[in-house]
Amino acid sequence: MSLVVQKYGGSSVADAEGIKRVAKRIVEAKRNGHQVVAVVSAMGDTTDELIDLAEQVSPIPAGRELDMLLTAGERISMALLAMAIKNLGHEAQSFTGSQAGVITDSVHNKARIIDVTPGRLRASLEEGNIAIVAGFQGVSQDSKDITTLGRGGSDTTAVALAAALDADVCEIYTDVDGVFTADPRVVKKAKKIDWISFEDMLELAASGSKVLLHRCVEYARRYNIPIHVRSSFSGLPGTWVSNEPQGDQQVEHAIISGVAHDVSEAKVTVVGVPDKPGEAAHIFRAVAEAEINIDMIVQNVSAASTGLTDISFTLPKAEGKKATAALEKIKATVGYESLRYDDQIAKISLVGAGMKTNPGVTAQFFEALSDAGVNIELISTSEIRISVVTRADDVNEAVRAVHTSFGLDSDSDEAVVYGGTGR
Amino acid sequence: MSLVVQKYGGSSVADAEGIKRVAKRIVEAKRNGHQVVAVVSAMGDTTDELIDLAEQVSPIPAGRELDMLLTAGERISMALLAMAIKNLGHEAQSFTGSQAGVITDSVHNKARIIDVTPGRLRASLEEGNIAIVAGFQGVSQDSKDITTLGRGGSDTTAVALAAALDADVCEIYTDVDGVFTADPRVVKKAKKIDWISFEDMLELAASGSKVLLHRCVEYARRYNIPIHVRSSFSGLPGTWVSNEPQGDQQVEHAIISGVAHDVSEAKVTVVGVPDKPGEAAHIFRAVAEAEINIDMIVQNVSAASTGLTDISFTLPKAEGKKATAALEKIKATVGYESLRYDDQIAKISLVGAGMKTNPGVTAQFFEALSDAGVNIELISTSEIRISVVTRADDVNEAVRAVHTSFGLDSDSDEAVVYGGTGR
Repeated sequence: MSLVVQKYGGSSVADAEGIKRVAKRIVEAKRNGHQVVAVVSAMGDTTDELIDLAEQVSPIPAGRELDMLLTAGERISMALLAMAIKNLGHEAQSFTGSQAGVITDSVHNKARIIDVTPGRLRASLEEGNIAIVAGFQGVSQDSKDITTLGRGGSDTTAVALAAALDADVCEIYTDVDGVFTADPRVVKKAKKIDWISFEDMLELAASGSKVLLHRCVEYARRYNIPIHVRSSFSGLPGTWVSNEPQGDQQVEHAIISGVAHDVSEAKVTVVGVPDKPGEAAHIFRAVAEAEINIDMIVQNVSAASTGLTDISFTLPKAEGKKATAALEKIKATVGYESLRYDDQIAKISLVGAGMKTNPGVTAQFFEALSDAGVNIELISTSEIRISVVTRADDVNEAVRAVHTSFGLDSDSDEAVVYGGTGR
Repeated sequence: MSLVVQKYGGSSVADAEGIKRVAKRIVEAKRNGHQVVAVVSAMGDTTDELIDLAEQVSPIPAGRELDMLLTAGERISMALLAMAIKNLGHEAQSFTGSQAGVITDSVHNKARIIDVTPGRLRASLEEGNIAIVAGFQGVSQDSKDITTLGRGGSDTTAVALAAALDADVCEIYTDVDGVFTADPRVVKKAKKIDWISFEDMLELAASGSKVLLHRCVEYARRYNIPIHVRSSFSGLPGTWVSNEPQGDQQVEHAIISGVAHDVSEAKVTVVGVPDKPGEAAHIFRAVAEAEINIDMIVQNVSAASTGLTDISFTLPKAEGKKATAALEKIKATVGYESLRYDDQIAKISLVGAGMKTNPGVTAQFFEALSDAGVNIELISTSEIRISVVTRADDVNEAVRAVHTSFGLDSDSDEAVVYGGTGR
């Protein structure tokens, strides 16, 4: 008998109807002979509503208490889901993160899973029950306090349970049909991807694709748990994310997996930095100490005449103020001239392991952008990804141009041939 | 340093403003030098809303899952309350029933507390924290499942914690100023009672007074925990419930504590029961096996000519159908003639330990009803209570007439003198 871990997001269980629909889907998997563990998020906007309540009683809600508060959300959805399943004539039991054995560190609001002890789940499954588990939550190893894993944490819960229970697959049910070659809201001709490697999925997630979070994919890769991302509405096969495609998974052996874009970042430029050893380190230590996650970093060649250089980096807009404040403090010690802050940028990324062995991808990428009249401000690359920063206004056009250029549009079945002009 | 357990009901924490007001009240007690444990119910109508959701997904929600669902309510209010207190500059930690050590049996939806192990609460108090505890919930000893104590269970949680922590007082905050000599919505001149004995309070609770539940008062009496019922809005002293009045508690040494009424019951009459041994036992065994709680029982003297008698009893309206169905089943074996079901009744009760030593109370009670033109259908008495059943339409007039007759109206300071005509 195989074991399936399924995860249903908030939009799938937004109301009583949604819960009943999800219950049917779970029961279907059980009827097909699987043991089923279903991880569930809070209903619809519950989490946002609870955060709003918290802010009404306290401008900066205490972390321990905020976690206690937010975990009420999944408690509601999981209990309702268990009831709905029992109403269909199958046995189900709901478990909090703590009861399911999700052990975390003590960092409230963004705890990390450090162990999973699924003894109660196993016992419940052995008794023939469907186990419903609250996503997003755990219990801290040291203080036995309730913790949450941060936004998107339910996906991580599902993958972690799948790993601990040695499940055959982790199915992530969501409100889209899978992972697409680009955001379908921007590119109408975007295609659903049938199979994608962990590596490409990690790059897409890091580049703005929102279907799966980076942390969740990382976890799945570490424990080699195949993920199947699919719609809880249509029931169609979705996107498989794994090391290797399985038997009947359609793989197009595409060179490029997809185009991702991200408009949530801003660009900080430190202008006129003396070009001597230790200056960049000084700047990024200040940013790191302010606990800011930066993304791309670019340093221009310094002008020989002045001995000064500019250093640019991108970071989440939400952390812009904190970063500029941290940099203002070290202005005198570093001796830079000024700071520029720009939040009207977009990042466009092309992802695909195929680019490692296909020279010319970079050139084609830049040509496509150039033909569309899109100006490039920053460039960064990894082995299987090229990212550029452009004006925010250009983002939709840029994504569409690149998508078409690489033959990803859904009405085109042709393979893309790259020239040998070097990458 | 004294230890105070406070309990705040759902109407006191119905919204963010209510939570902030309650937080201030708790901090005030802490500033006055007390260790404080605050037990809190779910916000406003949360519990009803959750039950409504449950009924949308399942006509008969499973007990275990319903408890899991409902306990989300207190989780929300307790976390918000702890945040609000921390925002006032005091340390607070919230605890679920399970974390607070409220151990129950496994009867979901109406579990009974069988032990309290408040180790985590004690440690938190010793560290200087205010402890916020979810009312109404616990964890089952055998299966470690989440349980709820049934409606009004938060009061019981508070009293049980007060007993386990050896608290000096258990303060029950509510939306009224205390226990009154009658329901102030019916009797405008009803007076707040400053002190009342556990015994009289138990009789009032059993007779329809809704301020404190019978189970909670029983628990307080068993462990001798003084209860102070008071308003979370006005902050005025309320009603003390204890074995003996304390130093400055005003006691009026009244013969009568109050008049209670109850319109939630119905009357079943089994007509034409053969008057021979075992028939009544047969009837009430059938009712008991249907798990119906009956209240008053009256059997008339049988008519010599027929050898038949009528047996009447009262029970909660909600259980009327179940009871008549159970009785229909035994109609042939018992051989009674017919069943009558009447849900247009009211019960009016006069409560006071003073009636033990004051003959004439019963006569005065009946005279007051008779003067008001109220017809009596059933009578039952205990040592410190007389109850009658009347038509539901007569209830308000009956309560007011009795209240006035016994000098309980608030503008009357005269003691009531009883004649020596025997009770």
